Amino acid sequence: MVKVGILGASGYTGLELIRILLNHPLVEISAVTSEKYSGIKVGDSFPFLKGYLDLKYEALSPKEISKKCDFIFSALPHKASMAVVPPLLKSNKKVIDLSADYRLKSPIVYKEWYKEEHTSPELLSPAVYGLPEIKRGKIKTASLTANPGCYPTGVILALAPLIKGNFIDKDSIIVDSKSGVTGAGRKVEEGFLFAECNENFKAYSLASHRHTPEIEQEISEIAERDIKITFTPHLLPVNRGILSTIYSNMASDTFLKHKGTSLTSDDILKVYENFYKGERFVRILGAGKSPQIHNVLGSNHCDIGFQIDKRNRRIIVVSAIDNLVKGASGQAVQNMNIMLGFEEHTGLERAGIVP
Amino acid sequence: MVKVGILGASGYTGLELIRILLNHPLVEISAVTSEKYSGIKVGDSFPFLKGYLDLKYEALSPKEISKKCDFIFSALPHKASMAVVPPLLKSNKKVIDLSADYRLKSPIVYKEWYKEEHTSPELLSPAVYGLPEIKRGKIKTASLTANPGCYPTGVILALAPLIKGNFIDKDSIIVDSKSGVTGAGRKVEEGFLFAECNENFKAYSLASHRHTPEIEQEISEIAERDIKITFTPHLLPVNRGILSTIYSNMASDTFLKHKGTSLTSDDILKVYENFYKGERFVRILGAGKSPQIHNVLGSNHCDIGFQIDKRNRRIIVVSAIDNLVKGASGQAVQNMNIMLGFEEHTGLERAGIVP
Amino acid sequence: MVKVGILGASGYTGLELIRILLNHPLVEISAVTSEKYSGIKVGDSFPFLKGYLDLKYEALSPKEISKKCDFIFSALPHKASMAVVPPLLKSNKKVIDLSADYRLKSPIVYKEWYKEEHTSPELLSPAVYGLPEIKRGKIKTASLTANPGCYPTGVILALAPLIKGNFIDKDSIIVDSKSGVTGAGRKVEEGFLFAECNENFKAYSLASHRHTPEIEQEISEIAERDIKITFTPHLLPVNRGILSTIYSNMASDTFLKHKGTSLTSDDILKVYENFYKGERFVRILGAGKSPQIHNVLGSNHCDIGFQIDKRNRRIIVVSAIDNLVKGASGQAVQNMNIMLGFEEHTGLERAGIVP
Amino acid sequence: MVKVGILGASGYTGLELIRILLNHPLVEISAVTSEKYSGIKVGDSFPFLKGYLDLKYEALSPKEISKKCDFIFSALPHKASMAVVPPLLKSNKKVIDLSADYRLKSPIVYKEWYKEEHTSPELLSPAVYGLPEIKRGKIKTASLTANPGCYPTGVILALAPLIKGNFIDKDSIIVDSKSGVTGAGRKVEEGFLFAECNENFKAYSLASHRHTPEIEQEISEIAERDIKITFTPHLLPVNRGILSTIYSNMASDTFLKHKGTSLTSDDILKVYENFYKGERFVRILGAGKSPQIHNVLGSNHCDIGFQIDKRNRRIIVVSAIDNLVKGASGQAVQNMNIMLGFEEHTGLERAGIVP
Repeated sequence: MVKVGILGASGYTGLELIRILLNHPLVEISAVTSEKYSGIKVGDSFPFLKGYLDLKYEALSPKEISKKCDFIFSALPHKASMAVVPPLLKSNKKVIDLSADYRLKSPIVYKEWYKEEHTSPELLSPAVYGLPEIKRGKIKTASLTANPGCYPTGVILALAPLIKGNFIDKDSIIVDSKSGVTGAGRKVEEGFLFAECNENFKAYSLASHRHTPEIEQEISEIAERDIKITFTPHLLPVNRGILSTIYSNMASDTFLKHKGTSLTSDDILKVYENFYKGERFVRILGAGKSPQIHNVLGSNHCDIGFQIDKRNRRIIVVSAIDNLVKGASGQAVQNMNIMLGFEEHTGLERAGIVP
Repeated sequence: MVKVGILGASGYTGLELIRILLNHPLVEISAVTSEKYSGIKVGDSFPFLKGYLDLKYEALSPKEISKKCDFIFSALPHKASMAVVPPLLKSNKKVIDLSADYRLKSPIVYKEWYKEEHTSPELLSPAVYGLPEIKRGKIKTASLTANPGCYPTGVILALAPLIKGNFIDKDSIIVDSKSGVTGAGRKVEEGFLFAECNENFKAYSLASHRHTPEIEQEISEIAERDIKITFTPHLLPVNRGILSTIYSNMASDTFLKHKGTSLTSDDILKVYENFYKGERFVRILGAGKSPQIHNVLGSNHCDIGFQIDKRNRRIIVVSAIDNLVKGASGQAVQNMNIMLGFEEHTGLERAGIVP
Repeated sequence: MVKVGILGASGYTGLELIRILLNHPLVEISAVTSEKYSGIKVGDSFPFLKGYLDLKYEALSPKEISKKCDFIFSALPHKASMAVVPPLLKSNKKVIDLSADYRLKSPIVYKEWYKEEHTSPELLSPAVYGLPEIKRGKIKTASLTANPGCYPTGVILALAPLIKGNFIDKDSIIVDSKSGVTGAGRKVEEGFLFAECNENFKAYSLASHRHTPEIEQEISEIAERDIKITFTPHLLPVNRGILSTIYSNMASDTFLKHKGTSLTSDDILKVYENFYKGERFVRILGAGKSPQIHNVLGSNHCDIGFQIDKRNRRIIVVSAIDNLVKGASGQAVQNMNIMLGFEEHTGLERAGIVP
Repeated sequence: MVKVGILGASGYTGLELIRILLNHPLVEISAVTSEKYSGIKVGDSFPFLKGYLDLKYEALSPKEISKKCDFIFSALPHKASMAVVPPLLKSNKKVIDLSADYRLKSPIVYKEWYKEEHTSPELLSPAVYGLPEIKRGKIKTASLTANPGCYPTGVILALAPLIKGNFIDKDSIIVDSKSGVTGAGRKVEEGFLFAECNENFKAYSLASHRHTPEIEQEISEIAERDIKITFTPHLLPVNRGILSTIYSNMASDTFLKHKGTSLTSDDILKVYENFYKGERFVRILGAGKSPQIHNVLGSNHCDIGFQIDKRNRRIIVVSAIDNLVKGASGQAVQNMNIMLGFEEHTGLERAGIVP
């Protein structure tokens, strides 16, 4: 049994890590940290876990964590994470960071979007962006895996096959995403009160959301050229789930003919099915079918559907994930499985809860 | 007091007409029809109206309705509406049809999208598309007003100023709309059950929704050229409200310079404020601000915000309406006021209910 | 036009007062106070009011308020209210206090439940408990009306006819109430976050809620003897609405026979209909029918239904109100109408919004 | 691996059985029946199961089911169940019936409440009421287990310790229950539409719900005397979860003194902890704490809290379950484990999903 620790284990993603790891046959949770709940038993702090984990929250230094754990998840917020990750790595522990601190390769871009100076820029290059379906090989040998953001996970998985195959105009990508409220963490702010979110819906961070450069970095790498996208997040009155509707213009007829394809619905279906062949957690729905958030709730799946808009020569791709599972803690466990040489889906083969 | 009748007065839009007209000082409801509830008092059928309207639902022929009423709203579904509207007009009654039957000018387009032969195509030309902020002049003298669809209302109002001023590439318009469940009416179908919609979210009718040609017809008229759009509706787990996020590429720099504008946020704000100057029901928010559904609930307002995506030279416009008010019954009353020569906002000056 | 002021006009009940008073034909809002939003226009602070009220929030002393207003609503929290009400009364203004500060007649009971020393106990006796259907006569001449709590309003109205007529065992009353989240005001606390309330339900303040002595005081006065009740509030995942299910044992057969009644459903129906004859805002449903929250949303109604449990000789009464309207601001306006000699339902005759 | 079949596997409880059994290490699902979906793959009918179960729905006769399965769950509605259970038992299969058909011991009571003649009354006596914490011994040897109703599960577990110990007046029990919408199954009726349930709340079946005699039968057996209760169910706008608030008068002081107890909070806590000692799925919270629905969602737990109302000498007990898990399919799997001699919690040790 590998001993794992969870830093920031009283937030939504930290608790979700506990929930998932409790059912993992090859690891045991040996430390959970929280300043707020330090000294209190996990089950007394969060009664849904009563009877499942006989541990108290602790306020531990990186050194103490390293003594207790062989593998560490940091579910701390960005900035807090980069304060503890370097010493953990120095004590030769493998780390998965669920914050944004090690996702962007450029410290300049980091500063531009997060308004913070990066304090360990030397780790940005060795850190691996932990989207297994795209970067499995590098994750295997990584010491530090930067777990992807919730929005980027569903968006990159939806776009990768089309970009890789040059089927779309890469300058035409527009991403319209809608996220459940837990996407913001457990922030005690007026805007996240029940009566402010319930029966409400709005866009936010118009043309300025921090996940924009993260998506662009990863799809640019796939395209082997710079891509800029328009990205608009919205706040859905549900607890969990992200649905992204992604628009792009189809590549020109000339180009497609040259490639010997006309890009019918069947063609696109094959493109997706081939790209994700053997992937346990990506499910391709048929043409014209939209994924639904409730089909992935509680599960590590990313469901993808699409439709051709013939009248406008556009492709509409829709993806759905649970932001706390495939968009955070489930994907983190998937990455851990890869990093530790376990079967990748260990502890994660669970259908969603419907309804 | 003008005597008004409501056909199909037991559906969501019919009941909303009753709710609004009860507070209208210049009309009285003299007949409400419903086959299902025929013979039952309105307040016994729908207890929220108990004590407000001393009428029974009736199953009336057009002839009987004409005897009882001077002005008629048809809140019947499409196809049912075109069976009763012609005789009502023949008996010299003014009619507002809330269905889709008289919105499209071309019977061929109607058949293509609604899979029905139009049975009174001669009325399509004299019928006026009832979006007051765009067509007030024609509505004044109309005998038959086709009340706009819920999605088209918010989308056309958001796009009109940009199209009119040629500020955007008219071939680049993408509309991503999200609607509350009452947008579908009170359909007793599995897909609209509480446990199927709640904590769920999905796109539907991908690239094939019937409101597409309606939006295209109206914005094409404004542009004086044919426009095609990509339109994707989604089902929101709320009772009421539509938020539309609309993307388009900005017109070319050359063109804008020629016009003597650089199209900054301030410029766009002025464009919208000028276009909707004096309009009681359109509220322009500042740049970077997204409307929120809860701010328009129960009211006849359309709130509009926008943002420039400089990195991609796109404009993002967001509009919000209550689908049952400005998207249906409130707008119908606004049209009635115009057709009857009343002050346009009579009975409609109500702020939304928040929260 | 009477000039009214609203203290604490940025909370949920304060905003609801604005919303209702905007449609009142005989008053105008001349001052709204808020420390947080001081200096900001109401419509900029809360966009749903944009275009409806051309006032800025101000931070005013009682003296300044008295200059600007003839009639004052205090929507401040308890304790804050008793700091400003006495000077307002001294300057001869009529006041309606929506907090709990002047509801309880005994300063000892106040201290016991609110853990505060009352600072103006001399006003407790002249203050009138503002439940118009029970205390209309006294409200007419009151200078200070204590607006009832949200739970007590629905509970007292449901119990009054049975208690007045001695139809139940007064020592057997159990009240199980369920309230929407706005019942707690706009408290920025973890427990009121969307993801904590949504898809959740719980009881709270078991056998210790502060509305208990308020209900007991009022029904004891009706009964002319002391009554104690068991009261359990619950938190419903909806924005608005309170439904109370109230249990009591029927009076003994001997007693009922003596009174010449057997207390059938029809008898009880008549009891309620007689008790509330002519009351515009109390609607009695037939036996076996439960009120529904959605039928009263946005309206000043209290709907009441009941059922006899013959097997156990108990009566079950169910009442529903909108906690922000009949449970707070609507009732306050009803009280104002009475205190100012207006027709009682002025500005309040609105059916609820369904759905 | 034991081969299990699920009859009526396309309803909410049937699908939940699939979801749970997929993670059960000792059984495999070998047949799932549905008339509506016959011939369609499970994952195509319900995409959340895509990739998890390679079976098609079938319309099978009891004989065919018996050939394919060793153990059968019937998730059919009542009446449909009693048509297939007898032949299954005759072919020597063990059966768990999730409907109400075999819960009541008396065919007369069955007819009184379900308005149907029971067609296999001879099975009512050998059938075992499947509430493991109360009837584990009998379930071990049962051929036919009648899985308890959702309301009765939470109510009986909450009441059993108090009744067993004679701590309450058994004629004073009042049960106020609130259930999520899936409690009604996937009924396509107007009353269960999203816009009718959302932002709404009501009581229903006042003093007449069919779960009343079921609760009474079981608690009467524990008390060894007849008990009648008042039971009021309510419809909560959530997908899953039942919270029951249960009131009863404390036994007389004389009696308690005689027993040598004063029944403090600590005493009651001990009563519950002792009664449920070693029970994996019943969690006792401390005095004054209310369970919350979200703590049990997706799990097989029943959380119980309580409070003494000293002023009225009453005890308030609150219990929470997930109606589809401990209230239906999870409890059915728990019963299966007992009937097959497996460890009782096999496949069921999962914490709930929060939030």
